[in-house]
Amino acid sequence: MKPIEVKRKIIRHEKGRTKILEDTIVSEYTVTVKINGQEFVTMVCSPQYIEDMVIGYMASEGVIKDYSDIEEIWVQEKEGFVHVKTSRLNPYYQDFSGKRYITSCCGMSRQGFVFVNDALTAKKMKDATAALRVEDCFRLMSAMQKNAETFKNTGGVHNAALCDVNGIILSRMDIGRHNALDKLYGYCLKNHITIKDKIIVFSGRISSEILLKVAKIGCGIVLSKSAPTELALELADHLEITAVGFIRSSSLNVYTHPERITNLHG
Amino acid sequence: MKPIEVKRKIIRHEKGRTKILEDTIVSEYTVTVKINGQEFVTMVCSPQYIEDMVIGYMASEGVIKDYSDIEEIWVQEKEGFVHVKTSRLNPYYQDFSGKRYITSCCGMSRQGFVFVNDALTAKKMKDATAALRVEDCFRLMSAMQKNAETFKNTGGVHNAALCDVNGIILSRMDIGRHNALDKLYGYCLKNHITIKDKIIVFSGRISSEILLKVAKIGCGIVLSKSAPTELALELADHLEITAVGFIRSSSLNVYTHPERITNLHG
Repeated sequence: MKPIEVKRKIIRHEKGRTKILEDTIVSEYTVTVKINGQEFVTMVCSPQYIEDMVIGYMASEGVIKDYSDIEEIWVQEKEGFVHVKTSRLNPYYQDFSGKRYITSCCGMSRQGFVFVNDALTAKKMKDATAALRVEDCFRLMSAMQKNAETFKNTGGVHNAALCDVNGIILSRMDIGRHNALDKLYGYCLKNHITIKDKIIVFSGRISSEILLKVAKIGCGIVLSKSAPTELALELADHLEITAVGFIRSSSLNVYTHPERITNLHG
Repeated sequence: MKPIEVKRKIIRHEKGRTKILEDTIVSEYTVTVKINGQEFVTMVCSPQYIEDMVIGYMASEGVIKDYSDIEEIWVQEKEGFVHVKTSRLNPYYQDFSGKRYITSCCGMSRQGFVFVNDALTAKKMKDATAALRVEDCFRLMSAMQKNAETFKNTGGVHNAALCDVNGIILSRMDIGRHNALDKLYGYCLKNHITIKDKIIVFSGRISSEILLKVAKIGCGIVLSKSAPTELALELADHLEITAVGFIRSSSLNVYTHPERITNLHG
């Protein structure tokens, strides 16, 4: 598989001095997914855990209902293809004559969650059993950041981690924010890991698409280093997801459903 | 028009103390573009300069060849529609039966720049006449950041500025990175502002899509606060675009085509 980072000669200017040096640059890998022989989507991503990403994407977009709908999946690394054979498909996706293109900053298909009203029919997270304390939020964010080596090297990736209150269970990075979440989700589906009692920790902004991805994955708590958008918070309110943002060393903002943070007022 | 930011009650936890306060949250606005009566694309964006954004998007995606192809354009603000009447359309877009959806972190259509090979046929920036000095890079980045009030308030938007060596000509913000560039481009098309002698200053990462957007807009220099990706740099090499990243107070990296930075070695 292509490396996540590559070396490249650059011109560095610092305090009036110029030198040529070898820098580390994050890779972008393009992969086209074919379902039952038909081209389905092209994704731009970091070249790691491609199979998990495709599984997670297909499940979160509702292309398949269950992981067991996938009969075969294999990655043609060098050529940049993932071939998927499914036993059944969501009827909505039976006829996909057009090609899709998912960029590195966006894991949305043109058909998934097209309108907010559709999104509002998504399952509410009432049955999410995860709960945590304020200090867990700080600890988990700090753990995710320590884990994020590639970001330190290249400044070019987003990180997502699946956690419980004890710490990180699984951590994934990608140049695409949604891809990092799809990679977590695909791994969980393959390995039958329950998500409703877990927490997602995320380096990026909580936009409406990220919030919807969290809902589709089936997680009730999302912790972010960054800001949310208004639409994301409206959705989080409605879908009963606890959204916490701007988590820094000793401060954070709880935007929605604070009831899952057990010591917030104590 | 909907405000760019809204007030919202949040729970703030800081150094062990919890309080309820009113915070500023960035808005997400959803707008559907109809071309000649047919639904074309739905974009998630900041609610400002919508007409410019749609014009810039249509031109950069090649839906129209010239701004003069647009006979009428009007924004139905409350309902979230932009209606466009064109005299001619790129034949490729004559038949768009499917709906597109452009998220806040991605201004790509599924059909624009679908493959890198297509992108490589994009016009090279040989005729870009802009040039600048190292100190201009620092000064312009600093000016853009001072201009970026909304980012300071909410932490949720990207900023793009069209500059010449004397300073900022035009500055736009958006929750979507591509949208900020489309808003610049649309304004320039409407007002017949030449771009090939200008510089784009950008708050976000230089991904392949951003680099291609810069090329489509017709700009030869892009300055970023953040990291580039490898694919973006390959494209910048080929398309003869000067890419400068990681611009901080006294340091920066020149990745491609340093010849437009006139005192780099002096």
